[in-house]
This record gives sequence, structure tokens and C-alpha cells, in this order.
Amino acid sequence: MNKKQLVKRVSQKTGLTLAESNEFLNSVLDTISETLKNKENVFLRGFGSFMVKERKPRRTMSLNTRKMIIIPGKKVVKFKTQIL
Amino acid sequence: MNKKQLVKRVSQKTGLTLAESNEFLNSVLDTISETLKNKENVFLRGFGSFMVKERKPRRTMSLNTRKMIIIPGKKVVKFKTQIL
Repeated sequence: MNKKQLVKRVSQKTGLTLAESNEFLNSVLDTISETLKNKENVFLRGFGSFMVKERKPRRTMSLNTRKMIIIPGKKVVKFKTQIL
Repeated sequence: MNKKQLVKRVSQKTGLTLAESNEFLNSVLDTISETLKNKENVFLRGFGSFMVKERKPRRTMSLNTRKMIIIPGKKVVKFKTQIL
């Protein structure tokens, strides 16, 4: 199922138009994205939670050049489901 | 951020009432849940994808009784983000 199909299904369920449903879904996804970018977790009871974890930068040796290189840290999003 | 806070934020953004926003969000989450329960993946471009994976049942030996036991298989939901 992709976003278009989700919008269609939700539009049928709620009675909102396709355009309204699309706008609303975008608003929901944008809000969750912004929250996670601010390193705040999102808990949706009965569905699951989105959590931001920080991976630390680490040092390793390049197999080609045999020099030490630094792999930069990054943020990752973990999802813990309550669905299944 | 919890569900109530998400509904409030989205209501402010879209101009829908809190009740309407809540109904819509529930409809979105329910639809995603149902889809995943039917083992169908959900792809939301620009946000991420929810994928159902099946863990196979496996045999192991109980440390207490030293008998073989079977750990039943289960379905898990993986989320791959496109956000950060």
C-alpha cells in the first residue's frame, strides 16, 4: 500500500474528500517528522512509538589505505510496534 | 509527543476541529494496522515504510529442564525511515 492508496481508503472511511485527506495525512507525517528531527520521541498508543537514537561516531581502519578513518555519527529512527 | 498532542498540532495546522482530527488520525492508524496485519507493507514516500517480517519458529534447549522446546514464530513490524 502506498500513500495514494492510504489516502483513498481513509477518505472512504471518514467522508473527507481526497484532497482534504491528502492534506491531513501530509500534516500528520510532517508533524511526526519535525518532532523526530527535534530528537523528541512520538508515542501513539495502540499503534506504536517512534524513537530517535543517536549513533556515536566511531573510528575504524580503512581496508584499502590502512589509515584510521572516522565514521561520523548519525541519528536513526526506531519504531516499536504495538500492532501485531 | 503523544497522540493527544499530535492531534492538537495537526488540528491547528489544518483548521479541522480536535474531534475531526482525532477521528482522521485514528482512521489513518487503523488502516495502516489492518494492512500490516494482512502482511501487506505500507510505503509512505518522504516519511518511511512499514514492513512485516515473519520470524520462523525455532528449537532450542531449555536451560532448566534440558528438554528441547519450540519457540513459536511471530510477525514483527520493521520501520525504515526516510526522515533523518
